[in-house]
Amino acid sequence: MLTGKILVAQGGGPTAVINQSMAGIVLEARNFASVDHVYGALNGVSGIVDENFLDLSQESEANLERVANTPCSALGSTRDKPDDAYCTEIFKSLKAHDIQTFFYIGGNDSSDTLKILAEKAATVNYPLRCIHVPKTIDNDLTVNDHTPGYPSAAKFVSNAFAGVSLDNRALRGIYVGVVMGRHAGFLTAASALGRKYEDDGPHLIYMPERDFSLDTFLSDILRVYDKRGRCVIAVSEGIHEADGTLIATKLAKQQEVDAHGNVQLSGTGALADLLTDHIKTNTDFKRVRGETLGYLQRSFMGCVSDVDQAEAREAGVQGVRFANQLERDGSVTIHRIGDYKAEFRLSPLEDVAGKTKVMEDRFIADCATDVTPEFLNYLRPLAGSNMISPYRLEAPSVTKIIGK
Amino acid sequence: MLTGKILVAQGGGPTAVINQSMAGIVLEARNFASVDHVYGALNGVSGIVDENFLDLSQESEANLERVANTPCSALGSTRDKPDDAYCTEIFKSLKAHDIQTFFYIGGNDSSDTLKILAEKAATVNYPLRCIHVPKTIDNDLTVNDHTPGYPSAAKFVSNAFAGVSLDNRALRGIYVGVVMGRHAGFLTAASALGRKYEDDGPHLIYMPERDFSLDTFLSDILRVYDKRGRCVIAVSEGIHEADGTLIATKLAKQQEVDAHGNVQLSGTGALADLLTDHIKTNTDFKRVRGETLGYLQRSFMGCVSDVDQAEAREAGVQGVRFANQLERDGSVTIHRIGDYKAEFRLSPLEDVAGKTKVMEDRFIADCATDVTPEFLNYLRPLAGSNMISPYRLEAPSVTKIIGK
Repeated sequence: MLTGKILVAQGGGPTAVINQSMAGIVLEARNFASVDHVYGALNGVSGIVDENFLDLSQESEANLERVANTPCSALGSTRDKPDDAYCTEIFKSLKAHDIQTFFYIGGNDSSDTLKILAEKAATVNYPLRCIHVPKTIDNDLTVNDHTPGYPSAAKFVSNAFAGVSLDNRALRGIYVGVVMGRHAGFLTAASALGRKYEDDGPHLIYMPERDFSLDTFLSDILRVYDKRGRCVIAVSEGIHEADGTLIATKLAKQQEVDAHGNVQLSGTGALADLLTDHIKTNTDFKRVRGETLGYLQRSFMGCVSDVDQAEAREAGVQGVRFANQLERDGSVTIHRIGDYKAEFRLSPLEDVAGKTKVMEDRFIADCATDVTPEFLNYLRPLAGSNMISPYRLEAPSVTKIIGK
Repeated sequence: MLTGKILVAQGGGPTAVINQSMAGIVLEARNFASVDHVYGALNGVSGIVDENFLDLSQESEANLERVANTPCSALGSTRDKPDDAYCTEIFKSLKAHDIQTFFYIGGNDSSDTLKILAEKAATVNYPLRCIHVPKTIDNDLTVNDHTPGYPSAAKFVSNAFAGVSLDNRALRGIYVGVVMGRHAGFLTAASALGRKYEDDGPHLIYMPERDFSLDTFLSDILRVYDKRGRCVIAVSEGIHEADGTLIATKLAKQQEVDAHGNVQLSGTGALADLLTDHIKTNTDFKRVRGETLGYLQRSFMGCVSDVDQAEAREAGVQGVRFANQLERDGSVTIHRIGDYKAEFRLSPLEDVAGKTKVMEDRFIADCATDVTPEFLNYLRPLAGSNMISPYRLEAPSVTKIIGK
């Protein structure tokens, strides 16, 4: 049974709906008379060490609802990965504040952090209930059909490429857009969702699940350009050569690595510029443009999936119920029932923690540069109710007089 | 009086509402019994030369309304600037199709093209009525209080920086976002509109109306970081040193120039990367991220100002009425009445064509890295009715036990 003090924190990269999960946990936990207080740790696990807690029991429900609709971790975030000494500090703080239930909202790395804490709790004999609540725009958590945060980011990417494809149709040329996704191509693949007319872009989609070759890249573009007179390309930041070398690192002067050993891929336009330079150097194309969709993918205000909002909320609520009913650690996981309903389960932490899911083969077209209809069918119900669709003029052409 | 065949075309960079003006022209022109046909030229003036016309008289009103809500030039665009031979071809086509009224929707360069055509028409004694209908996300047309396309792009930039500022609040560090705007800082200045709490970013805003120095840039950042522990920076792509050297050209390997002599600034991440490299090289800051907002500023689906939509429509409608009533060439201009109503007038083409307006001094703060309240007051009514606002947790901190 859920008792005493409940702690919630947020880790890793923000999403558009991560505060929905936080609000879900706080509001649901406050329903339990046996719960004294709901604390929020600032900046993830680092806030536990520093005793930077907010007393969320005192947060008004009205304001919690407003914060829930605000993108990015309202409690702040961290990429810290606790070592043994760090864990000791965490348990010192948890003990001092008599906290025995911890909800950590995060992705692969945050679930890994939680697994480390759960193992340490057993070792030091501290009764800590650990519940991981999923979020990641990368959609790469194992066990889950999909993860909160992904549908909204996917909607942003879809809208972005739909717009850029219209722009490219108006002014022609080659456009390369770099999308987040280190190992998994789900977000890059979402660029296909906004296609409507047969010649809409993106015309080429490069996901990290398939090896990338600069030579094949060029011949792909030439083929599309011959047919369409233009080419819109979606590229994952994680594309790599057959030997595993990241295309992005070919240019980067210095590698920046976070506490989890991840190389910095976002926050630089290097990959887009490398690719457009490669096209300009090796072809005669005049208008070649490259850009990086960047942090807007996870933080943009005003582009959120209502399905994603509801599921992120529910993931938090269910996490609290699981903690109360099942009395075991775990990760809240989302499963697809029919077409389409989300079901929530509590899976073992070790099935999710630190693991990475990538796109299944059935989602990637045989040509390796497109998605399958099965992928679109997978993504469509997640994108929510208010997707916008572009339209074209349908008027007939006027018969030429001079050039007839 | 408006008679015979009416021609409409779109030039320059697309906007989110450029099709509203096109729909306004087509629907209003179709109300005149004296108008036989409304033609649309594909890809601006180049479509006239090639006789690539659509018969928009046959476009259904329902589909025109759907297209009006779709971003980017539905008729396609061009950056061609007609020389004498080009003009001869244009008039050959206009004459063959018996077109005597031409509405060109575009910015500085397109209005300049129209002025060239109007002058040529007088020279060759061809009775061509030329009406320029304004659009540009840069907001840099003279005479106009503001231009259709700018409010929606400004809303995108505002939402983008509001989100990025939340992201930066969660994970800290330095963020540099590069915004479109070659000579005028209006769009970069719009990054300030999403600020709400006192410490919200952007904390520094660099507009091309003020000289830029890499040294001052560093000291500005250090000052902000000392105070806030983080720094969000909005930079115009057109920032330049005191001698006029573009900061972007300091890095670019080769200069790409269009028919109007403009250097390519968009479609590359070079400026953001130069600035972040400069920060990384000269400071100890660890998390320094740079990105370019790029084409999403003018093409993103789902981020449009309803005020902008209505005004872009009205600019087209009024253009047709002016052509009918006033029987002279001109540029439709928008004027601000009170706080706030838009009034449309027909100004002489030469007052707008090829000229560039920049931010007035009253809109730029004395520190040179911020806007004034007067600017926010100028922009706010344009952004429309559905601006989203971020919210923060308000719960009190828990008293520290260990660290007290």
